[in-house]
Amino acid sequence: MKASIVTIGDEILIGQINDTNSVWISRQLTALGVHIFEMTSISDSKDHIVATLDRLMGKVDVVLMTGGLGPTKDDLTKEVLNEYFEGKLVMNQEVLGTIETFFSKRGRTMIESNRRQALVPDTCVPLTNNHGTAPGMWFTREGTHVISMPGVPYEMKPMLLEQVIPAMAEQLGLPELAHKTVMTHGVPESYLAEMIREWENGLPECMKLAYLPRPGIVRLRLTVMGKSTEEAGRLLDEKIGALHQVIPEHIFGYDDMPLEQAIGVLMKEKEMTLSTAESCTGGNIARLITSIPGSSDYFRGSVIAYSNDMKVRALSVDPVLIEDHGAVSREVVEAMASGVLGMTDTDVSMATSGIAGPGGGTEDKPVGLVWIAVACGNKIISREFRFGGHRALVIEQASIMAMGLLRKLLAGIDDGGLK
Amino acid sequence: MKASIVTIGDEILIGQINDTNSVWISRQLTALGVHIFEMTSISDSKDHIVATLDRLMGKVDVVLMTGGLGPTKDDLTKEVLNEYFEGKLVMNQEVLGTIETFFSKRGRTMIESNRRQALVPDTCVPLTNNHGTAPGMWFTREGTHVISMPGVPYEMKPMLLEQVIPAMAEQLGLPELAHKTVMTHGVPESYLAEMIREWENGLPECMKLAYLPRPGIVRLRLTVMGKSTEEAGRLLDEKIGALHQVIPEHIFGYDDMPLEQAIGVLMKEKEMTLSTAESCTGGNIARLITSIPGSSDYFRGSVIAYSNDMKVRALSVDPVLIEDHGAVSREVVEAMASGVLGMTDTDVSMATSGIAGPGGGTEDKPVGLVWIAVACGNKIISREFRFGGHRALVIEQASIMAMGLLRKLLAGIDDGGLK
Repeated sequence: MKASIVTIGDEILIGQINDTNSVWISRQLTALGVHIFEMTSISDSKDHIVATLDRLMGKVDVVLMTGGLGPTKDDLTKEVLNEYFEGKLVMNQEVLGTIETFFSKRGRTMIESNRRQALVPDTCVPLTNNHGTAPGMWFTREGTHVISMPGVPYEMKPMLLEQVIPAMAEQLGLPELAHKTVMTHGVPESYLAEMIREWENGLPECMKLAYLPRPGIVRLRLTVMGKSTEEAGRLLDEKIGALHQVIPEHIFGYDDMPLEQAIGVLMKEKEMTLSTAESCTGGNIARLITSIPGSSDYFRGSVIAYSNDMKVRALSVDPVLIEDHGAVSREVVEAMASGVLGMTDTDVSMATSGIAGPGGGTEDKPVGLVWIAVACGNKIISREFRFGGHRALVIEQASIMAMGLLRKLLAGIDDGGLK
Repeated sequence: MKASIVTIGDEILIGQINDTNSVWISRQLTALGVHIFEMTSISDSKDHIVATLDRLMGKVDVVLMTGGLGPTKDDLTKEVLNEYFEGKLVMNQEVLGTIETFFSKRGRTMIESNRRQALVPDTCVPLTNNHGTAPGMWFTREGTHVISMPGVPYEMKPMLLEQVIPAMAEQLGLPELAHKTVMTHGVPESYLAEMIREWENGLPECMKLAYLPRPGIVRLRLTVMGKSTEEAGRLLDEKIGALHQVIPEHIFGYDDMPLEQAIGVLMKEKEMTLSTAESCTGGNIARLITSIPGSSDYFRGSVIAYSNDMKVRALSVDPVLIEDHGAVSREVVEAMASGVLGMTDTDVSMATSGIAGPGGGTEDKPVGLVWIAVACGNKIISREFRFGGHRALVIEQASIMAMGLLRKLLAGIDDGGLK
């Protein structure tokens, strides 16, 4: 099956917003074996939308469009599609009901432009928008399906996953293809490739491996092509089992499970409680931990101690330690990790202290230097890291490394390889 | 001047890498007044490259291509362009010299595939690659310029800035254009459009307005076309000044300044210190505040009180308040805001308590209900919100609203319109 992704909106062409929708959609569809023929961003202009449709009709099976469905007058997609597919706009009572519910839930009053969003071409199947006011639309002509969705990512994503993909599978059928992603932490891509080379070379012809690196994490995506679901599942289980033998300590999960979720699973398993004491990460670790639904079962709280005074006052760090070793030191970060355990009455904790930049670095303690400690009862482990990159990247890497260190401590893994 | 950006590479179409080149190029060119007609990602395939060129030749003035120039056999761009522009590949001594220098500087040995990169079509002007081995190419036919650059961002960016743009300015001339973005907070897009309709209708023909919404924020982008820099600047100042009269309380900054930076500017101006007490936002507000370089000048720290015990213990919230009103209530969030002021010895604070979901909601207190308080000395303001959407969106909206509320308190603005 061939699909094209079309993004509509001047704000993308002028570079004001980054089009994250296209890459996200292509990932979802590629994973299902759909071949993405092209991704195109075009302007909110009738001529350009029509020319693009003319070009793609008959050439691909599915055109997925996002954007241009807002209530303001610069949004033209609905009118253009209505004309292109020779329909007329009619008030759709079901869509209107969804919009009314959307507003009443939020205690807001509907205005005329909101009501007009329930006007839908009678030549399409409307798609429900559970997170906004603009409905999606599904048109079909001569074997090509044109599906229009809102451009706002949190409106578009559930629409694609919950409505569009199931309907594509049912009406068009999706190719046979199976895959699984292995999540690893603590080894850079090139080292990991060396470690698993023999295993990789032994993969059969029908299996494909992709390395997908992110700061601190490498995802290994394994795809099986052209096998029955059962046979593909058996192959994936076998090869991933063998991979586990090679790098047991570096695998923390599967299928894009984030590290913060792996931590949550471990905490629930061990019935433990968690806290953080953050300086340079500024709350980012707590934010990641609490991004997981149900984290209130094990996460009690944090102290973000951005000033020395807060480290002393809220985390009971001995001011002499700060004076003697500086705030960014093994001694202080360990005192922070044990201090927050007492303060929050929790079983385990993570603590960070470092120089995120761009200012504040010295020759001895440059920007990117971060001390991380994890504590579990009386046991404390601390490590020094020197991260490259700008402020946001230092914070991101420090957060990932803190969680990785905690995972290894909890799982009883020697962290000799953690760098 | 009209330009199209074409990205070549299968890795983009399957969503393996995000195409950051296109948005970066479009930003550079838009700022110079070039109209970006389209951005397209296509596969490493001769047919697709040729079809795309056929479509764009004569329609735009410039086609900027990136990618497909590597030394491996899946990179076809050079061969395809050579054939398309009816040239032959010849060894370019100047390019060869650059490649040799590249390798000798790094103490690496050149192999045959590296040497072959100096083969350049004799129908193009080669562009020097100072950061890699693949040269760029500039072809011209019947008024359309086709410029091919490497896909690696740190090779492409200097090539565009140092060679392509200066040559475009010299050979083609660049149009005059100016723009400014007004950042607003606290009014949804459709309401804002009503509020500023009269002002919008009074804009002259040469000015264009775009609404760019995000959760809690609407950016208004104002562009002036075809005027001198001086005249455009005058028009922008005049119209933005007039807009300020219409919605003074909703404008918090210009040109994509995030709310956390606007807060930072205010804190520095007033020489005040800041803290947060977060329950449902789980550290996200602290993370946003500390994402701004220099935030340690005013941000002292936070208490993330995810459990009731932490609210009592660390923030001195009276346990009777929690028992009588529940943790998600005006009484408790106000006690959190004033508790953290004392705990951190700061001038102002933000506090949140809510139900981020997906679990934990009741009929009385559904998922999405969030209480937010901001405190400044003895003054406390608190508001109830009912946010839609999933967990991440509730957290994001609550964070934005807390900062918006603080901004209005600090700026002395009545927040009657804040919803």
